[in-house]
Amino acid sequence: MPTLLLNADMGESFGPWVMGLDKEVMPHVDLANVACAFHASDPDIMRSTVRLACQYGVRVGAHPAYPDLVGFGRRSLACSAQEIENLVLYQIGALAAICRAEGTQVAYVKPHGALYNDMMQDNDKLLAVMRGVAAFDPQLPLMVMATADPAPVRQLAKQAGISLWFEAFADRAYDARGFLVSRRLPGAVHHDPQLIVEQARRIALGQPLTAIDGSELQLHADTLCVHGDNPESIAAIRAIRQALDTAV
Amino acid sequence: MPTLLLNADMGESFGPWVMGLDKEVMPHVDLANVACAFHASDPDIMRSTVRLACQYGVRVGAHPAYPDLVGFGRRSLACSAQEIENLVLYQIGALAAICRAEGTQVAYVKPHGALYNDMMQDNDKLLAVMRGVAAFDPQLPLMVMATADPAPVRQLAKQAGISLWFEAFADRAYDARGFLVSRRLPGAVHHDPQLIVEQARRIALGQPLTAIDGSELQLHADTLCVHGDNPESIAAIRAIRQALDTAV
Amino acid sequence: MPTLLLNADMGESFGPWVMGLDKEVMPHVDLANVACAFHASDPDIMRSTVRLACQYGVRVGAHPAYPDLVGFGRRSLACSAQEIENLVLYQIGALAAICRAEGTQVAYVKPHGALYNDMMQDNDKLLAVMRGVAAFDPQLPLMVMATADPAPVRQLAKQAGISLWFEAFADRAYDARGFLVSRRLPGAVHHDPQLIVEQARRIALGQPLTAIDGSELQLHADTLCVHGDNPESIAAIRAIRQALDTAV
Amino acid sequence: MPTLLLNADMGESFGPWVMGLDKEVMPHVDLANVACAFHASDPDIMRSTVRLACQYGVRVGAHPAYPDLVGFGRRSLACSAQEIENLVLYQIGALAAICRAEGTQVAYVKPHGALYNDMMQDNDKLLAVMRGVAAFDPQLPLMVMATADPAPVRQLAKQAGISLWFEAFADRAYDARGFLVSRRLPGAVHHDPQLIVEQARRIALGQPLTAIDGSELQLHADTLCVHGDNPESIAAIRAIRQALDTAV
Repeated sequence: MPTLLLNADMGESFGPWVMGLDKEVMPHVDLANVACAFHASDPDIMRSTVRLACQYGVRVGAHPAYPDLVGFGRRSLACSAQEIENLVLYQIGALAAICRAEGTQVAYVKPHGALYNDMMQDNDKLLAVMRGVAAFDPQLPLMVMATADPAPVRQLAKQAGISLWFEAFADRAYDARGFLVSRRLPGAVHHDPQLIVEQARRIALGQPLTAIDGSELQLHADTLCVHGDNPESIAAIRAIRQALDTAV
Repeated sequence: MPTLLLNADMGESFGPWVMGLDKEVMPHVDLANVACAFHASDPDIMRSTVRLACQYGVRVGAHPAYPDLVGFGRRSLACSAQEIENLVLYQIGALAAICRAEGTQVAYVKPHGALYNDMMQDNDKLLAVMRGVAAFDPQLPLMVMATADPAPVRQLAKQAGISLWFEAFADRAYDARGFLVSRRLPGAVHHDPQLIVEQARRIALGQPLTAIDGSELQLHADTLCVHGDNPESIAAIRAIRQALDTAV
Repeated sequence: MPTLLLNADMGESFGPWVMGLDKEVMPHVDLANVACAFHASDPDIMRSTVRLACQYGVRVGAHPAYPDLVGFGRRSLACSAQEIENLVLYQIGALAAICRAEGTQVAYVKPHGALYNDMMQDNDKLLAVMRGVAAFDPQLPLMVMATADPAPVRQLAKQAGISLWFEAFADRAYDARGFLVSRRLPGAVHHDPQLIVEQARRIALGQPLTAIDGSELQLHADTLCVHGDNPESIAAIRAIRQALDTAV
Repeated sequence: MPTLLLNADMGESFGPWVMGLDKEVMPHVDLANVACAFHASDPDIMRSTVRLACQYGVRVGAHPAYPDLVGFGRRSLACSAQEIENLVLYQIGALAAICRAEGTQVAYVKPHGALYNDMMQDNDKLLAVMRGVAAFDPQLPLMVMATADPAPVRQLAKQAGISLWFEAFADRAYDARGFLVSRRLPGAVHHDPQLIVEQARRIALGQPLTAIDGSELQLHADTLCVHGDNPESIAAIRAIRQALDTAV
């Protein structure tokens, strides 16, 4: 079985405001998606977050977003492709400097919130993100959502000259195409810890999931997204980590 | 005579708002101090400014500032040393990514406005800026103000492990210690083009200036700051450029 | 003929950046749409703009926008209805305080840019804007776009308990429904001064326009939007002003 | 004994970030200092905070600050007097609109953080704040720090045409002039609940405190500042409330 890396959003505090249990999450994940001060974080928090990641040997990813602090980057903003390319580039660079100061480097890029959703829905935006990544370093993988048919996204990545990491979710229901069921629909989010761990295990082993319509869904994923907002979610991360280690 | 490089602030437009005659200035300078989006500029303007610099073979410097867009970074902000170090680092990195996308790199760092003034008055802040530069790349020169006694600043730079470029002004009167006479005092700013060119020529040739109190002031400068806000200032830049080329 | 008031966006400078020829425009208009610091302006510019309006007896309107300075409020931002209601309310209040300091008051509300476009396309957003206006003062008219069928918007305004001012454009082509032809299409913007003045005159007299498909378009408008960005547009404002005064 | 009102900072969350136990504090205080989105809060949080205040019959005060979200308004920013006047005015107005929507109004003004400290140290800044308040409504009291000699501040208020509310602190040590002992010095902050309640009681009864140098300090205060950041501070508020009610 290939390794399924755990990734989590980190460094999403801002100024005096704290968010996330970064210290509790960091020991259990492989990849830290570090906010770059457009939707959360600031230069000081970025630095302490990168330092924390280094202490646990966790790789640091840039987590660029639309410039929308008050909306936490969750609201779609009608940026042009050129604007998206440059804001991605800017944010990767800012984090790269922080990483350099802490003796590490940016290892991948995962867009945040509405930017992530928009790029999965709009190829022009996805290409813009890819151009931003490629302009910084074509060796840097871009994290995108694993879906039933990754071929179109792979084709765009090839065109942009970059590589991809596919990401899956253990606590969300999927539709038949491998897209997440909207949170507004019933059953969209799994709350049963056993169900979450089982979904993680199946993804890690390359076994098909059952989509919301009952069909079989095969996802190929390199990494699994986990969250560390409260004690329950920390417990879920530990359970997933243990299940994956056992599965191997 | 050693070369006296001309530096100018560039890329100080913001979103839809235009500032500065960058296209007219760029052909005549050696060093472009590019704003990094804390006091002016945005990722798109940074990119087009760096591209313009590359077209003219002008070296790009990071021009970091306090986070104060509406005040254009001209108002002192009581940041801690740690905050200063990290905001300098962040801004250098953001510009470095833009430079990489345009096939160049950050060649030096010149703090902007109130941050520049504050670091020249407060060694803790100067050291914080130096640590930010050193953390990114100790090879990167920091531009500081040339004064009558550069020894203390040199000592701090040695401590921080970085090199310095000393900057002088052709259109400002100096006091006996080599600090700029406050703009609030009469005679602080030279308006006579001939006087400006003569001051530039003397600085370039290593000849002493006359301080506001009549004393002789010897400044050792690597670069001269010029401005390109209006047609008169563009004419001044051309005149200085010509005088320096002739002097050589 | 009922009076057709001229309205123009004002106070769209920001910090040190200047935009618009406010001093040239103010003598010729009736209504100043004053930016409220979300897409442009700041408290100082708001104050000097309101003072200028008072000098010419021009009524002041609040010009609220999405919080997007770098994008000048021109990019749609996926705000909730609640967020829109409250950001409209906040901005009206801020300007109202400035007005009070200058001995006047907010006379109407005209949303800016993407917020204006979005509310004309989405009734939930339009109602949210209306609730924001009504919560501040139900007597305050909301400026909306005049279209061929104003009945649905009137119905919403009645529901919200507010009144409306309908706005038309002299320099833009209309489609058959009375919506502006997209700027991306040929013929969307009129450049011929005579054509612009004639369109203004027809709107003022209640005479039908010719839509882009050749059909007749009847618009009922209370106010005409004019722009003052450059000398040509100032000339256009003066020509329109003269034509309207003559028509009366 | 005249009533000593309890005031607390409220609505200092921002976007998705939560700060303060507003729901726990509100039932126990008389005055809610509501952040106006320059150092914390946003239009939505302002509205829900004002609504909460109304539920408990708590009076709402504007809590204006320097524009420094990431620094939470705690860092001094070198604003001009004109800038201070206008940013105070802007923020009062924004909150006044929110209050109007919730059927209440701004009852007083208390500057926040560095702006509060700066105005207590610099009469030009204090006058600028006073002009901002007076321009909005001269009836609105400005909250300032109670010191041993309130005469100079009273004189300035008279000049500006506004009234004052003097504020004291139960958990901080005072120097002989009635200024707070710097937090960097030992003994600056009281941690003993009994000591805090006793200081509150003495202030309420108009009895002198003992300054850090042992001298007797007489403060005349209209209101006492309390904090609600954690369960301990909530307990302190309840204890103070009870002591004051008993004292009466």
